[in-house]
Amino acid sequence: MSALSAPAEIIERVDAALAEVLSSSAADFARISPSAAELIEPIRAFTAKGKRIRALIAWWGFELAGGSASAEPGIARVAASVELLHAAALIHDDIIDDSDTRRGRPAIHAAYRTGHAEQGWSGDSELYGIGAGIIAGDLCLTLSEQVYTASGLARLTTPSAIRHHDDFRREVMVGQFLDIRLQAAPVAAEEVSERAREVLTYKSAKYSVEHPLLLGAALGGADDALLGRLAEFGLPLGRAFQLRDDELGVFGDPEVTGKPAGDDLRQGKKTVLVGSALTRLDAETADWFSSRLGAPDLTDAEIGRMEELLRSTGALAAFEQEIDSEIARADVALGRLDIADADRDRLAEYIRRLTRRSA
Amino acid sequence: MSALSAPAEIIERVDAALAEVLSSSAADFARISPSAAELIEPIRAFTAKGKRIRALIAWWGFELAGGSASAEPGIARVAASVELLHAAALIHDDIIDDSDTRRGRPAIHAAYRTGHAEQGWSGDSELYGIGAGIIAGDLCLTLSEQVYTASGLARLTTPSAIRHHDDFRREVMVGQFLDIRLQAAPVAAEEVSERAREVLTYKSAKYSVEHPLLLGAALGGADDALLGRLAEFGLPLGRAFQLRDDELGVFGDPEVTGKPAGDDLRQGKKTVLVGSALTRLDAETADWFSSRLGAPDLTDAEIGRMEELLRSTGALAAFEQEIDSEIARADVALGRLDIADADRDRLAEYIRRLTRRSA
Repeated sequence: MSALSAPAEIIERVDAALAEVLSSSAADFARISPSAAELIEPIRAFTAKGKRIRALIAWWGFELAGGSASAEPGIARVAASVELLHAAALIHDDIIDDSDTRRGRPAIHAAYRTGHAEQGWSGDSELYGIGAGIIAGDLCLTLSEQVYTASGLARLTTPSAIRHHDDFRREVMVGQFLDIRLQAAPVAAEEVSERAREVLTYKSAKYSVEHPLLLGAALGGADDALLGRLAEFGLPLGRAFQLRDDELGVFGDPEVTGKPAGDDLRQGKKTVLVGSALTRLDAETADWFSSRLGAPDLTDAEIGRMEELLRSTGALAAFEQEIDSEIARADVALGRLDIADADRDRLAEYIRRLTRRSA
Repeated sequence: MSALSAPAEIIERVDAALAEVLSSSAADFARISPSAAELIEPIRAFTAKGKRIRALIAWWGFELAGGSASAEPGIARVAASVELLHAAALIHDDIIDDSDTRRGRPAIHAAYRTGHAEQGWSGDSELYGIGAGIIAGDLCLTLSEQVYTASGLARLTTPSAIRHHDDFRREVMVGQFLDIRLQAAPVAAEEVSERAREVLTYKSAKYSVEHPLLLGAALGGADDALLGRLAEFGLPLGRAFQLRDDELGVFGDPEVTGKPAGDDLRQGKKTVLVGSALTRLDAETADWFSSRLGAPDLTDAEIGRMEELLRSTGALAAFEQEIDSEIARADVALGRLDIADADRDRLAEYIRRLTRRSA
């Protein structure tokens, strides 16, 4: 018998739980001041969109462990909590990366900055945008904890759920810090790949797949053996998902990714792919690659040469092989799960969706 | 029989609980990467200092409601959680206010910025400081929730504790947003005082006194009647505390406050005191006051004139009267609490300490 709910059904219930917590906060805040709407409404608009990847995965983790969404409807709030954590991460990330666009619209801090400037308010618009964006992200983080606790799930306070809840949150922050540090601090060419792999694991792979899966499973009553088997599935899937994202960051079709060609090279990101190329180049070419990566005056011709080097050194081929073997690892782990065929098919399809070549 | 623990004893146990959660996180993070120490160590140094005002008040709220710190030692973790929330607020505030100094040392983001510049790292030092500071504050917020849950107090999941926990966090964020908005957006002279009072209530009075007191009390088992009596004590005390702080922000002795004379006028803060003066001035002088408040080229002579206007309009006298009546209100509410004389004396002394004229 199939245990996993259909994505459309999950997304509908997560959206409803999100709308509920945000509406009730908006009502509470309106009693403080009408101006508080300027804090909560952008969050409402922001969280109305999203692929709900982590919410889906948390929900399925819960069901894979035997949890029932009809017996414990609070799982919708847990999934909403995961999406609010993600909203906080994105809102703060966009400030940290000085990125003005998100999901095809102005990033939250950019919208605050523009509003400040257009209305001719006093003080520095840039600083106002950063300040209001920081507070909006903080509020998402707090609302995420609030709706999590309000889910009332029976296993919320089990040691396993507490550990997975805490690790989910702390580790993405550590990963985020390691990321900005890696981009800023000098690092030997032969170490880039390893450092980038740490960032990929903690900022992305665990955060996007393994952690939500295990948190949901812990809340569904998974024992340590099942948690172990799910980690063997979730971590490689998360790695493959982010590795593909890194590939698309360099070679993705601008029409599909919504970013300019070679965007990660322009931004100077030290990724696993770049690190792999650096170890394959002669010292002089590696120096050139490192010194031009992210240079403000980087030309299209130079980007073309970098892309060519990623191919000609075999770095790209090795990288694609790595993605394939992470996918294969996830497939094997999926095969080991004791679940209905329909559920296995659903998860296999989701693996393909998360790791396909078109973003 | 006295119920309230002595401040020194509380602070010792809060410090130990803080040290414990930070050491265990540092150990966990070290397994991810040695570089993660750069994220956790500044937090450790930052939280090692502090007046522990909110921790003390939460602890006493717990004891006033009948909670026993020997029966439920987890209250130390709740108090540590309150201090970590405060650390998050201060770390993010310093970015939001573009303030480089905190507790006589470089603010967290300023230290990251300086480290980046001094080591000649790549990218923009300013942006690195802001980014790392945002992440450090986020981590404090998350560790605050973590240690709160880990306290294991019996009443953690009661509706009353949940409500007070959520309001404590959300409302300070709303207050913080209303503050930066008030400083930025145009506001009619006759409305400044009312708007500033909203900020004072939510960003400071409730956050610094009422919320930690009621959260502690809810965890100690207070019923609604006792929570109501404690709110009648905590809110005026919190108001008096912050009103005095506003007074010292203009008239405080630089030797004592550690800030230049008239600092709040230099920074252009629209406070209750300034709002009160604006409604008492003729239109022309009010316009001058508003337009020069926070002006980058504000002279010492102009600050002197503003201070003189605050006095000559009677705004300062009315303001001091307001502080005195908030203190009186707190005293009356204290008198209504059914507690031992020794405890009443301890709390009365604390009222004086929080609201005395020397910062």
